Amino acid sequence: MKAVQVVGYHTKLQLTDVPEPEIESPLDVIVRIGGAGVCRTDIHILEGQWEEKSGVELPYTIGHENAGWVHAVGGAVTNVSVGDKVILHPLITCGQCRACRFGDDVHCENNRFPGIDTNGGYAEYLRTTARSVVRIDDSLEPADVAALADAGLTAYHAVAKTAKALRPGDMCVIIGAGGLGHIGIQVFAAMSAATLIVVDRNPDAVALAGDIGADHAIVADGTHVQKVLDLTGGKGAEAVVDFVGEGGSTKEGVAMLRRAGNYYVVGYGENIDIPTIDVISTEINFIGNLVGSYNDLQELMALAAQGKVTLHTTKYPLDEFQQAIDDLDAGLVRGRAILVP
Amino acid sequence: MKAVQVVGYHTKLQLTDVPEPEIESPLDVIVRIGGAGVCRTDIHILEGQWEEKSGVELPYTIGHENAGWVHAVGGAVTNVSVGDKVILHPLITCGQCRACRFGDDVHCENNRFPGIDTNGGYAEYLRTTARSVVRIDDSLEPADVAALADAGLTAYHAVAKTAKALRPGDMCVIIGAGGLGHIGIQVFAAMSAATLIVVDRNPDAVALAGDIGADHAIVADGTHVQKVLDLTGGKGAEAVVDFVGEGGSTKEGVAMLRRAGNYYVVGYGENIDIPTIDVISTEINFIGNLVGSYNDLQELMALAAQGKVTLHTTKYPLDEFQQAIDDLDAGLVRGRAILVP
Amino acid sequence: MKAVQVVGYHTKLQLTDVPEPEIESPLDVIVRIGGAGVCRTDIHILEGQWEEKSGVELPYTIGHENAGWVHAVGGAVTNVSVGDKVILHPLITCGQCRACRFGDDVHCENNRFPGIDTNGGYAEYLRTTARSVVRIDDSLEPADVAALADAGLTAYHAVAKTAKALRPGDMCVIIGAGGLGHIGIQVFAAMSAATLIVVDRNPDAVALAGDIGADHAIVADGTHVQKVLDLTGGKGAEAVVDFVGEGGSTKEGVAMLRRAGNYYVVGYGENIDIPTIDVISTEINFIGNLVGSYNDLQELMALAAQGKVTLHTTKYPLDEFQQAIDDLDAGLVRGRAILVP
Amino acid sequence: MKAVQVVGYHTKLQLTDVPEPEIESPLDVIVRIGGAGVCRTDIHILEGQWEEKSGVELPYTIGHENAGWVHAVGGAVTNVSVGDKVILHPLITCGQCRACRFGDDVHCENNRFPGIDTNGGYAEYLRTTARSVVRIDDSLEPADVAALADAGLTAYHAVAKTAKALRPGDMCVIIGAGGLGHIGIQVFAAMSAATLIVVDRNPDAVALAGDIGADHAIVADGTHVQKVLDLTGGKGAEAVVDFVGEGGSTKEGVAMLRRAGNYYVVGYGENIDIPTIDVISTEINFIGNLVGSYNDLQELMALAAQGKVTLHTTKYPLDEFQQAIDDLDAGLVRGRAILVP
Repeated sequence: MKAVQVVGYHTKLQLTDVPEPEIESPLDVIVRIGGAGVCRTDIHILEGQWEEKSGVELPYTIGHENAGWVHAVGGAVTNVSVGDKVILHPLITCGQCRACRFGDDVHCENNRFPGIDTNGGYAEYLRTTARSVVRIDDSLEPADVAALADAGLTAYHAVAKTAKALRPGDMCVIIGAGGLGHIGIQVFAAMSAATLIVVDRNPDAVALAGDIGADHAIVADGTHVQKVLDLTGGKGAEAVVDFVGEGGSTKEGVAMLRRAGNYYVVGYGENIDIPTIDVISTEINFIGNLVGSYNDLQELMALAAQGKVTLHTTKYPLDEFQQAIDDLDAGLVRGRAILVP
Repeated sequence: MKAVQVVGYHTKLQLTDVPEPEIESPLDVIVRIGGAGVCRTDIHILEGQWEEKSGVELPYTIGHENAGWVHAVGGAVTNVSVGDKVILHPLITCGQCRACRFGDDVHCENNRFPGIDTNGGYAEYLRTTARSVVRIDDSLEPADVAALADAGLTAYHAVAKTAKALRPGDMCVIIGAGGLGHIGIQVFAAMSAATLIVVDRNPDAVALAGDIGADHAIVADGTHVQKVLDLTGGKGAEAVVDFVGEGGSTKEGVAMLRRAGNYYVVGYGENIDIPTIDVISTEINFIGNLVGSYNDLQELMALAAQGKVTLHTTKYPLDEFQQAIDDLDAGLVRGRAILVP
Repeated sequence: MKAVQVVGYHTKLQLTDVPEPEIESPLDVIVRIGGAGVCRTDIHILEGQWEEKSGVELPYTIGHENAGWVHAVGGAVTNVSVGDKVILHPLITCGQCRACRFGDDVHCENNRFPGIDTNGGYAEYLRTTARSVVRIDDSLEPADVAALADAGLTAYHAVAKTAKALRPGDMCVIIGAGGLGHIGIQVFAAMSAATLIVVDRNPDAVALAGDIGADHAIVADGTHVQKVLDLTGGKGAEAVVDFVGEGGSTKEGVAMLRRAGNYYVVGYGENIDIPTIDVISTEINFIGNLVGSYNDLQELMALAAQGKVTLHTTKYPLDEFQQAIDDLDAGLVRGRAILVP
Repeated sequence: MKAVQVVGYHTKLQLTDVPEPEIESPLDVIVRIGGAGVCRTDIHILEGQWEEKSGVELPYTIGHENAGWVHAVGGAVTNVSVGDKVILHPLITCGQCRACRFGDDVHCENNRFPGIDTNGGYAEYLRTTARSVVRIDDSLEPADVAALADAGLTAYHAVAKTAKALRPGDMCVIIGAGGLGHIGIQVFAAMSAATLIVVDRNPDAVALAGDIGADHAIVADGTHVQKVLDLTGGKGAEAVVDFVGEGGSTKEGVAMLRRAGNYYVVGYGENIDIPTIDVISTEINFIGNLVGSYNDLQELMALAAQGKVTLHTTKYPLDEFQQAIDDLDAGLVRGRAILVP
């Protein structure tokens, strides 16, 4: 089959012919790829940023946001059948450690990460396990939802946690209405009756935020912290979800947070640097957020099937992977770039 | 001032002239009534059903769903000012017992219930305390929201609790789309991304349910339990909210409930009568629901201000209280009857 | 190997020689049995009470409370190694359904139940899977903890849930200090600072309750409801855990429950039969409880390793299974009877 | 009556004669002081550190950890009677703001803080309100528990929150076994079955920690982080409660924290300074903690009445306030210094 592989760092990906994966264990599932998201992380891999961390042996197939159709299943698989449309949870998890047994897949002590440390989805087929395949509704197409597998799942996980702690009349600030943020806004609008304020530097993103669910959408132009305080009676918002995490967003975010409020850290880059006396005297919390669980992905797919979460995509044939990457690097992709084998 | 009073049981209410209430304690608040809901409970009071339970001394002023404007405040009142539009929490609570200190007002050990065991709102003015007045948005009118004070608050309390335990893709059944149910449906649609199935015997109520937020609305005609099972893959719904509680609804409701599901009891009349082995082998829960707290009422008013919860009302001048009660008794009121002094 | 099998209903168990189980799938685990609990359910099985429900094909090996040593593991097993001491969760679960993915094993849609519907532990070896084996501390012996696998796990599950909702100064009533109850008392004493009142008809059980953690232990002699009310200022307890569920315990239990209290149903036999108006006017909850999850069993084993939960056992060689069953039936077993192959 | 007052900053406290406080409002309560804790904060007040923040007008009576007997009550007080033994919540709260209505007193929007911004307890009598007096058990003496009113309540609040999220087998690290820490250790031992590791620089404090409930007590000598990792299988603890918050404790604390763990910030001094990527990649949380609520104080008093939390105190007559302060400043007080009028 055709597969796009990392053959070295600081060099280009290469399209090559590799053997099709086969069922090796009763829980294995072979997925025929219908769409593979092209992510900035893929560029970082080529730059060698993940070389040491992943320890992956080259060459291997890249691509960590995948969806498609079940092509073959091992003898012990009960949750999907051949032909089912599926999206893939980004991790392959053991199901045996205590974290897995709590449904907290992302902290699996024995996880593998296709596209990062084992073969991924820039290919015709991918081998995963029953624990990573989520059936999607007939109304959804793999290439349309593939990019929800990782970026979307992270946004869902953080926002669902946020929504659970909020009540009607509460205020929530989302910082960043880009890739993750614009999914988060849709999730929030679907799940919560609290009031949503979105802040972004990009006026286009701010306009989009208003269209997809923000009650207030504000351009981050230096006056935005004050505007949020004005909207919240000077008290700040009960929750801040920070999809940026750099360029000063954490300091600004804390300035927009109410006493006893929750600060959800999603984006990253800079440090949280705050006096402990400020943490205790206002009794605020900082809540870390990684990608969601398998069950989170089922829930996000329920929202997608109900039309409550949609994603703009630009599709490329698998052969045109280089164009997709170049377009992404040049900022020319509208929504998410998806490779379709 | 004018007040409509209970002067005896099994006799008619009487419009009379009584002294205006005055501030007696620093936390007192006098409210000029803008609307008082006429409720089936008022008829039950006249029938003597509450005589023993309330122990109220006659005559007294009836009316337990009240809203209006702040007319006077005691010296220690900080949460409202003269002229504020307010809705009244149905209970006057002590603020000193452990339940009050948890915000669980409804279990206050020293509560009074205006309209039931002390003077209520079928009058020009009513004395309550700072602990019972919730400011409402400028866009709302007292007469339009008064009936949310008790019936609406009960529906909000139960449904907000339900919504908190549900996730996208989960199914919730609401039994009964009448007075409380149609508020509950609107609250659910505003707060939850789970799928809502509404069941009612009245085809008009079922049609309304579909308009105001139900994903599936089903006439309870004997086939409804099976229809819910069909919609839930034969497994039943994760939650059932029962606004009826009589005529067999609890047995049917349990038949529509999934393993590990929650059954929210709101309406009442019949017994829950279920083998303990059924409770433990399916591990289901029965959750009792009384009226909501003061903070619940603030949240419901936030939803009302946002236009997410609306109520049909038919208004009558205070003098026409008898007509309002007669119309209610005859089933001629569209939505809720409201007396306007 | 030797195994004790059900060869027919209304007839005696039979010791026979059967082939040793073998690894058939990469997640399989073969356990050399160190102890198998003899339970009243085993007698019920022989009486045919489970015939229709389990649909098991005869003959098969009985025994559903098992512990021992790992004898062999399939290729995908990572959580245990050959030689490990283990206790067995009572269910074999699929790990793929949504309940399993939440860690809610007991609601697995594809579970099997060794000793009930597939081969159990009255034998030298048993085949289970990696998902059902919990490693136990070096200080514990399989024959000493085997009976915690089902009865103990049920008590742990209910009491851990109870403890989570209680605070210092709250009162909890446990009804029944027998098999499950005396585990529940120890678990409660280890996990909660709330005050524990134990009620039982048997004065010996009441005396034991006082020794192992009850703050107040009361003989159920007709005055016990009033005694609990006296201890709780006339208000009732914040929680009642009912390990009996028959003979009027649910009515008495509700009479001992405070407004807004939780009633944990564990024992079964009679019906809960209560007016819905009582449920809503006091806003109480009935919480169903089945056996615990895999993670619950890990937690119970942590308590056992710390010496916080202990169990009286009477051991019999496997060959003397008939004696063990006869003794159990005659009420001659002190603590739990355990077969040791 | 006699009162010890702040008459200026950078000058000594002065014993003077002032009028006894009187009931001014129906919720007022006059308490005859039985014990007033002498706290390092009192020294800071004299140094002027609180001058700007409190804005208090001099002279005023100092002392913020108070207990005693109810001397007089206003007409609307229902929770205490004259003669009752009481401890005082450190704040006087309005009971009308949304935070108060949730039982979240510490975030009251209109609070006053006796001893800081209004008259405190270094005196024969103090005026507070019904909302701040917690009845204590007959077996307790005001002078013995007074210091639990603030320091103890903060420790209780943080540790009760911590305990709620832990399960048997989980590990919790407490950093600091001093004033707050040694209360926290006792609270933890009473409320949780999780395993407790205590770390402190002072070998005496470490020895005490072992006596009052720590499962492992470790001297912070540079090897302690590694020791905690060794005790937790290299994974770190599920929770870290930091009563120090300076001198590098936050960096060390995070190094001892497991993936998905909770870091409870109580002590303060230094900054939390951590890359957002570390927060999200391990998905840890930082939880702020201020003093507890009124209900928290009731719960702590329940633990004290049960003998589960005790405090060493050194008592001084009110007249010897200067000696108490000098002793505290010189590190000569064993336990907490208490003034007894």
